[in-house]
Amino acid sequence: MTPTDEPTSDLQPREGEMTLPFDPGSEDGDARVAFIGRVNSPWTERSDCPKNMNAARERGLPASLAVDAPYRPGLSGLARASHAIVLTWLDRTPRNLIIQKPRHAEAASGVFALRSPARPNPIGLHVCRILGIDEKQGIVRLEAIDVLDGTPLIDIKPYFASTDAVPEATRVDPEKPD
Amino acid sequence: MTPTDEPTSDLQPREGEMTLPFDPGSEDGDARVAFIGRVNSPWTERSDCPKNMNAARERGLPASLAVDAPYRPGLSGLARASHAIVLTWLDRTPRNLIIQKPRHAEAASGVFALRSPARPNPIGLHVCRILGIDEKQGIVRLEAIDVLDGTPLIDIKPYFASTDAVPEATRVDPEKPD
Repeated sequence: MTPTDEPTSDLQPREGEMTLPFDPGSEDGDARVAFIGRVNSPWTERSDCPKNMNAARERGLPASLAVDAPYRPGLSGLARASHAIVLTWLDRTPRNLIIQKPRHAEAASGVFALRSPARPNPIGLHVCRILGIDEKQGIVRLEAIDVLDGTPLIDIKPYFASTDAVPEATRVDPEKPD
Repeated sequence: MTPTDEPTSDLQPREGEMTLPFDPGSEDGDARVAFIGRVNSPWTERSDCPKNMNAARERGLPASLAVDAPYRPGLSGLARASHAIVLTWLDRTPRNLIIQKPRHAEAASGVFALRSPARPNPIGLHVCRILGIDEKQGIVRLEAIDVLDGTPLIDIKPYFASTDAVPEATRVDPEKPD
């Protein structure tokens, strides 16, 4: 990936952090992601953006997905699901921070133990309540989302409690979401 | 994406289905995914592969993730999570099937209303119980997974019930998971 593909980030390594000796976005031989639309959200500054979906819902502001024209028929039937799994491409983060120390954390941790937006493949995962769908206009209205306005959209999946909800899994302190 | 990048698929359009007039994998200007490892699973044939995580758990066979060496430090700290969200790249499916008719379904449906592996960005999402982690060897042992052996791994995230479990969301008949 060339510098023009990846906007300069304000996330720089902190003490105890570790970077990969290469940029995962620049490696050859793997696969290409197509952006299928964009997220419209109330969050234009990273400092203002909720850090997880609970925090986003508490802010009480809706959001939406704008799906590009060729992909709009793909929304047909999504209305039967109450919630969607929205996958985004977090294009404003470095991809080589393999050990990270979140601001609120006491110790550094591996990227795969964190929900940080800075990761080798910067895929954001957001479980969102669907408020309405306009297939013709390509709009999916959401109760809330925890991602910056304009973030590229890469997938939408129906969320099914029967397979995706694991209430007995580990819970975290909402004040320390990572 | 050239034909050599995408293995020939046995998923061909059925009646009522609709394809995009282009291959999302061949478009320029978006982003590149890095494979960070592979899935080791018991499933080598599509016909034998469980269609969702509930079905995979019922088969009673464990699986594992093999993480490539540079990414292994990223596993540090993951052991505190009981479950992981595993993201894979489903590289044996067509990417242009925008309306699909699953075998068991009565009607065709948009791809974003289905959990089909054939999607514009073929990202598989699997919520898996973690049985053990060997950071040095890059191995994450899982209770089960619903994906073919050898499938590329693109991300691991800790699953937190506090943000990821939505028990009140739509449930589906386990016999008709899509």
